[in-house]
Amino acid sequence: MDGLKVLFHINELSRWQIVLGNITNFLNDVGQDNANVEVVINSEAVSIFKDKCKQIESGNLCSVSTDLSLLEQMEKLSKVGVKFVACRNALKAQVIDEESLPDFVIVVPAGITEIVRKQAEGYAYIKP
Amino acid sequence: MDGLKVLFHINELSRWQIVLGNITNFLNDVGQDNANVEVVINSEAVSIFKDKCKQIESGNLCSVSTDLSLLEQMEKLSKVGVKFVACRNALKAQVIDEESLPDFVIVVPAGITEIVRKQAEGYAYIKP
Amino acid sequence: MDGLKVLFHINELSRWQIVLGNITNFLNDVGQDNANVEVVINSEAVSIFKDKCKQIESGNLCSVSTDLSLLEQMEKLSKVGVKFVACRNALKAQVIDEESLPDFVIVVPAGITEIVRKQAEGYAYIKP
Repeated sequence: MDGLKVLFHINELSRWQIVLGNITNFLNDVGQDNANVEVVINSEAVSIFKDKCKQIESGNLCSVSTDLSLLEQMEKLSKVGVKFVACRNALKAQVIDEESLPDFVIVVPAGITEIVRKQAEGYAYIKP
Repeated sequence: MDGLKVLFHINELSRWQIVLGNITNFLNDVGQDNANVEVVINSEAVSIFKDKCKQIESGNLCSVSTDLSLLEQMEKLSKVGVKFVACRNALKAQVIDEESLPDFVIVVPAGITEIVRKQAEGYAYIKP
Repeated sequence: MDGLKVLFHINELSRWQIVLGNITNFLNDVGQDNANVEVVINSEAVSIFKDKCKQIESGNLCSVSTDLSLLEQMEKLSKVGVKFVACRNALKAQVIDEESLPDFVIVVPAGITEIVRKQAEGYAYIKP
């Protein structure tokens, strides 16, 4: 792929649907083969992976409103090349075990460093 | 115009006054002739144009708190060269008829694509 | 210093802890000598300096929840090279006397102009 490079930054749990909708609309507009999309997840936004962890451990459905549909949307997007990158500092702060993350999530030591590096590589920055 | 290039991104209705204030202060600081300013409007922020549509159709004043002063500020800024660009996906999601938009608003297929392209052209990105 | 250049933009009072935590994690990750970090403060975010002003004038502790720990974190970061830049328009709007600001805070005529200029100089933009 050698197309439009875009980095989405999410750090609030409430913004997931907006972010995933933005990415879907963008890929529909330019075509999946013409875009390099990466999502950097830090601060409380990583807690999207929390319910899933609990669910895996307990074998039960999440008691609170499940975010499974969001995770399914993420997985679908990852299959068309969207990269999901989580910040290790944020995972630690939210007490989320890295081993419990979905396979398509990459962990980096610091989300901010990833954002800075990607912009230096020519990625556009978008904060939905 | 060949000046400082700036793209403002707004996706929350509550941020309009901040965005318009930021642009006004910026233009006062650098001078209108030294700036290329574009505002990309997506997600719920396009609903600023909703009340006006209703108003036009019904011939009545908006029943809820009117956003006319914001629209007037936008129109004023558009007259000094500020471009207002709305996302078609967002307009559809908010059930806003493109024909009802103020004349100074340009519609693009996807707001995110516009943001990415502008950054590639050297525009600074600001999310107020 | 000639390292990764990053500009953090804060315009909401509630985001201070997130911003300062992001900067701390970033510097821990890349090393203080490998980064140029600047924080541009505008809109209501400048009111972090309000309580302190009152405190200085009255000689009393702030009656509301004190933000001293945030100010202490800022001062600490300033000592390792982080620049804190406040917008004069915002200070005026929040009725904050420039003379009362901590020594490590630099005032610019318009915060947005500073953000635009820094991005033109190659700084990455981050809005926590």
